[in-house]
Formats: sequence, structure tokens, C-alpha cells
Amino acid sequence: MTFTYFMPTSICFGSGALDELGRVPLPGKKALVVISAGTSMRKLGYLSRVEALLHKNGAETVVYDKIQPNPTKSSVMEAAAIARAEQCDFVVGLGGGSSIDAAKSIAVMAKNPGDYWDYIAGGSGGGKPVTEGALPIIAITTTAGTGTEADPWTVITKEDTNEKIGFGNKHTFPYLSIVDPDLMMSVPRALTAYQGFDAFFHAAEGFIATIANPMGDLFALKSIELLARWLPVAVKDGSNKEARAQVALANTLSGLVETASCCTSEHSLEHAMSAFHPKLEHGAGLIMLCRAYFGFFLGKIPGELYEAMAKAMGEDVEALPKDKRAAAFLTALEKMIKACGMESLKMSDYGITRGELPALARNARETMGGLFELDRYKLSFEETVEIYEKAFA
Amino acid sequence: MTFTYFMPTSICFGSGALDELGRVPLPGKKALVVISAGTSMRKLGYLSRVEALLHKNGAETVVYDKIQPNPTKSSVMEAAAIARAEQCDFVVGLGGGSSIDAAKSIAVMAKNPGDYWDYIAGGSGGGKPVTEGALPIIAITTTAGTGTEADPWTVITKEDTNEKIGFGNKHTFPYLSIVDPDLMMSVPRALTAYQGFDAFFHAAEGFIATIANPMGDLFALKSIELLARWLPVAVKDGSNKEARAQVALANTLSGLVETASCCTSEHSLEHAMSAFHPKLEHGAGLIMLCRAYFGFFLGKIPGELYEAMAKAMGEDVEALPKDKRAAAFLTALEKMIKACGMESLKMSDYGITRGELPALARNARETMGGLFELDRYKLSFEETVEIYEKAFA
Ligand SMILES: [Zn+2]
Ligand SMILES: [Zn+2]
Repeated sequence: MTFTYFMPTSICFGSGALDELGRVPLPGKKALVVISAGTSMRKLGYLSRVEALLHKNGAETVVYDKIQPNPTKSSVMEAAAIARAEQCDFVVGLGGGSSIDAAKSIAVMAKNPGDYWDYIAGGSGGGKPVTEGALPIIAITTTAGTGTEADPWTVITKEDTNEKIGFGNKHTFPYLSIVDPDLMMSVPRALTAYQGFDAFFHAAEGFIATIANPMGDLFALKSIELLARWLPVAVKDGSNKEARAQVALANTLSGLVETASCCTSEHSLEHAMSAFHPKLEHGAGLIMLCRAYFGFFLGKIPGELYEAMAKAMGEDVEALPKDKRAAAFLTALEKMIKACGMESLKMSDYGITRGELPALARNARETMGGLFELDRYKLSFEETVEIYEKAFA
Repeated sequence: MTFTYFMPTSICFGSGALDELGRVPLPGKKALVVISAGTSMRKLGYLSRVEALLHKNGAETVVYDKIQPNPTKSSVMEAAAIARAEQCDFVVGLGGGSSIDAAKSIAVMAKNPGDYWDYIAGGSGGGKPVTEGALPIIAITTTAGTGTEADPWTVITKEDTNEKIGFGNKHTFPYLSIVDPDLMMSVPRALTAYQGFDAFFHAAEGFIATIANPMGDLFALKSIELLARWLPVAVKDGSNKEARAQVALANTLSGLVETASCCTSEHSLEHAMSAFHPKLEHGAGLIMLCRAYFGFFLGKIPGELYEAMAKAMGEDVEALPKDKRAAAFLTALEKMIKACGMESLKMSDYGITRGELPALARNARETMGGLFELDRYKLSFEETVEIYEKAFA
């Protein structure tokens, strides 16, 4: 029970929280507002509202609107050059995880020399230390997705080498994160489910990771509890404000889990799948994997971990014989998948073939091997393939 | 469900965590180390260990060793002058809540002009804004007491006017807090109980306050759970390392509750008692009050709040008829008081008389009236006296 907990972001949460942007002390006078290349931030009126609030609060704005679903190094460098040229002194990421991740990386490159990849540790990255900090970041999340508003992490893709690598340090925690569930009301049904499950697995993996600790566990169990209860409600009825708010809270809590603990190899396995099959949503891939993944570890890692998660999900664990309690987590997971209408997701529907599973296993272990080190039971290559095989349908 | 959560302190927790002081990036080159006027920090070897770790980590040290159990404005001003003269660039508070609170206030006055009371809002304070920030603060807590390591608050007494007023802002969060339960092993039995109950009531009051929110509630219920289970163990056997660690964690969590939410009027009632009877320990006063205080609100505030706390304390709430569930919190509280051997604490043993109770009620409402505003049921003067009367023995 030894840990360090550090999460310096100011989190402004709740229905209507966006309006705070017009009142809070801003970290500068000119913002680069970063949004996706899609049209939704304009169509939904969020961009104009954010700009108006910033103007009212005394800041000028410049918009960068070219972020891809998998944000790229070239966008980061382009936007950072604009931030320098326009003398922006803070960066606002508005949208889903990709816009906010991009905003974090842009904030770093607006202050540090050279190329973004010079600072990446791993792959072809240069591993240079970030010496100049970063511009302050404001994250305004419009999905209950990645939890990036409550962690320092950003995942950027280097297009020419097809590397997708995470990065983060004390400078990439947002200065302020606004989590306003009212902005999430129009997220479509399937995306709501995928993103909610992504948050769920950030919490569940963080809870079973070797580096789990009491602070992360507290956030994780609450996130798991809220998602098991409210994600099916939000998926069935996207207009349910309470469900949207509870799922948003769960997602922010899962970001805190990412700050206090870390994902395990389930995320490596999924990243390999969506790297080879870009149309596969990250959350959908996790749902396809989870029964086989968590099933594999049953009996191999302490049963109390699964018991605690099952209990948080509302299973009457105490009523079960002791040797059945851990498995209650798998039962609860199955129920949650069904309640969200996600029981028929199939790898083969996304073009994944049984024959490529060994290649996926190799990719997962090569490109995101670090997360395997955080598993309580160390998977061999054969066991990694075995999990894919069990998950395959 | 709208809230802002901000707690920028890096918390380094666990057995042996003190050694991190020799390794972490320090916020400066010269520390003012603030300890109490008592002898324990030297006798226990903590001061020399802290100085050695700071020296090893490249920082010089100057010691200020005159902090009283109720730290005074004159000590704050004296130590701040030393910090300026010695050009200290950070402040280390080593000890219980008083040393850490003093360190926070010293850090403010080492950077801001004029008198500490110029910046105090309330009483005879000048209410001036703090414009110059504060020196970075490192908190090293040797008791599981006030939770001050995880909140921005500091309580300082102005001797000539006998005002004891809280203060805090974004600059008075510690930069780093080290919570090493090994440093708490020698806290005597009664003090362990008093301080543990103080932490308990920070959590319980924060949970029932009008400004309670999901983040604070999460910390509060965990703190309550840990204290109900582990405080009696730590009180009975101070050498139990796990119990000390769990109580230390609960105390830090209760500090997070103070950051996210706030105490209610129970603290006002107690402050009046210990202001008039300085030998009364704050935690002991709270124990004397709590049955009458929480008993008074039973049926007046939502029963779910008491139910949730009772459940966290291990009561089988579901087995009770619905109309008895809220009262289970009072049962659990009674059990916890007995388990810690605190059932015979009496106001009269500290010289409090029945006749002075109205004066206490007036003082509580005048000097700490703000906390009454955070009660879910607004106490009248007569009801305030009624609670004191019921608590009197
Ligand atoms: Zn994920
Ligand atoms: Zn207290």
C-alpha cells in the first residue's frame, strides 16, 4: 500500500458546467481551439458557444479544425506552428478523446523545439525530455469516452511509420477540464456503448493491474458501479439526463484510474485489432475481447478482485458459495453486455480472420508489451493467442 | 450533481514514504522546516532524518521550532520573517496539523506584504486578496489527525483578540504531502482515538453537508469505512502497522473530503467548547457532541445519508425495516466509540458546566456561523442549545 497520487486538473462537472468557461480565471489571453475535422462541433453549436464564452471572458480565439479520429503527428505539428505564429497562450481541446489528446500534444509542441516524435519514448521516438513544459490546456469533453480529461495521457499516430504511441507528463494534465453531460446528449447509441465500455475497462483493468493502489481502486469501483447501472440506461435512452450525467462521471473517474493506475494487456490486444482493422471502434474491440480476457485470468489472479468488481456491479456475491464468487464478475459483465445490446459483436464482422490471430498477438506484444508487465499473471505468446481464439467469433 | 474538484497536491503515501524526500524533485534550494515547540520531532529523530534527506537531495535547511498546539499569528509572522531573511524558497511542515497549518500560513507571509490578518476574511481580518501566491509547501504528517495534508486549509489564532480563523486558497495546497504511517507508530492511545474521530467527523459532516458532491462522497464513505474498521484496532494496539496505515489513509481521504466538501455545524459547536476550555482536545469534544448532534438530525435530513454511512461502517442495513435503517448510523457510531474506549468522555470532566451551554451556542453561531449554513436542516439558537444539553454529561 505505497503509492503517489497526483492529479492537478481542476474538474468542473455537471449539467451546464460549460458556462463556467465564461467565468473561471483563464490561463491566458488567446486560445487555440482544437476540434475534429468532422462537422459536429459546428453543427451542434458547441464551437460557437465555446468561442463566445472565451470572448466574454476576455480571450481571443483561433480555431484549428483538422483533427482526425486517430490524431496524427502532422496535425500536431501544424497546429503547434499556428499556436506559435498566432501567439496563443493556451490550448482548448473541444470534442472527444482525439481532440483533447491532440490539444495536449499541441500544447507541448507550442513550447518545445524540434519534432513531436523527438519526445516520444518507444518505437522510433527520440525519448528527449520535455524541458519547456507546455501551454496550459483546457479540455471540454463532448463524449463519455476516454477519460483523457482526468489524466495526462495523449495518443498520437505517426503516419509514415504507422506508430500509435502514448505520451504524457506533469505538463499534459489539463489545467481545467469541463465535463458537461448536456454536451453528450446527442452521442449515438452504439458510440455511447463503445465509449462507456472503454471507460469500464479502463477502470476494471486499472483495478486488476499490479500497480493498483487504494486511490485508483476507489475511483475504479465507483466507475464500475456507475457504468453497470447507468450505461444500459444511457444506451437505451440517450435523452435520459441522469444516465448521461452518471456515465460522464464514471468516465471521468476512469480517467482518474488511468492517472493512479494503468490499463493491462487487454488494451494491447485491442490496439492490435484496431490497428489492423481501422474501422473497428476501440470500445467495440474491447467488448469482443473481454469475456475471453477476464475469463482467462479467473483462478489465476486473486479472486477478491473479481468479487469486488462483481459486488460493485450489483451481484449478490455473498449469497454464492466461496468458489463461485469470483466468477460472478463474468456473469455481471455478460449481463451488462446484453443490457447494452452488444452481445452480437463479432470480430469476423470487421474482417478479422482466425488465421491472423497469431499476427495480432505478436503485434500486441511488440507494440504495447509494457501493459503485459502490469498483468498479475504473465501471459505467454501462446496464451495471448489462446485469448484471441476464445474471443473470436 | 454539479461540482468543481481541484486538489493539486502530490500525495506520497505508504510505509517508508519519507525516504522519497531524498529523491523527489524539490521545489527549491533552501527549506524552512517548521516544527512544534515540543520536543518530539527531535526525540523521535524525525527532524534529523528530514534534514538529512533534504541535504542529500541538494537543499539547505533552517529550522523554526516554536509552533504551539494552536499555532499563532505571531509565530507565523516571526517564521515568515526568518524565511525572508534566510531566503528560503520553500517551507516544510513536519508534525501534526498545527505545524503543517503553520507552514501553509508562513508560506503565504513569506511572499506577501503586511500582516497575516490583513488577508483573513472574517472576524477582525482585513480580507485582502493574496496577490503574491505562497512559497511551495511540503507537508510531512506524523499524526492521522486533521487531513491538512490533503486540503488547502490552515487555522491560525490571533492571540490578542482570541480569534481562531481558517484560511486557504489555491496557493496553500501543499506541493507535496508525505504520509508515512511509520511516523505515526508512537502516537499515544487517546490521541490516536481523538484524531481518528476528528478525521471521521470531517468525512461524516462532509457527507451530510449541503455542498456534498460525488467526489467528496466517494472519499467520505471510504474514510468512514476504514475508520470504523481500523481505528479501534489502532487504538488498542498502536504497534499494528496495518491499522496505522489504514487510519492514515482514512485521514488523508478525510482531507480530500474537506477539499471537495466542508464540515457542518458540529465543528462550530466543538470549536466553541475548546475555545472556552483549551485543555479539551478537538477530537474529544467532537466525540462528546456526536451522538446528540447526529441524533438531532435523524428524521430531519434524508435517511439515505445515514444509511449509506451505516452501511460503510459494516451495519447490515438491508436486514432492518426501512424506518430503522437511518438510525443504524447512530448504532454504528455508538459501537465505534465503545470499541475505541471513548464512551465515558464527559464535558463536565473538562470543566464545562450546564449553565454555560447557551454561551457556547452563541459563540458557535457567531464565530463559525458559516458552517450552520451547510447543514441540511437549519438549526435555531434554541436547537443549538438543545444539542449541547443532550450531549452534556
Ligand atoms: Zn481504452
Ligand atoms: Zn476537525
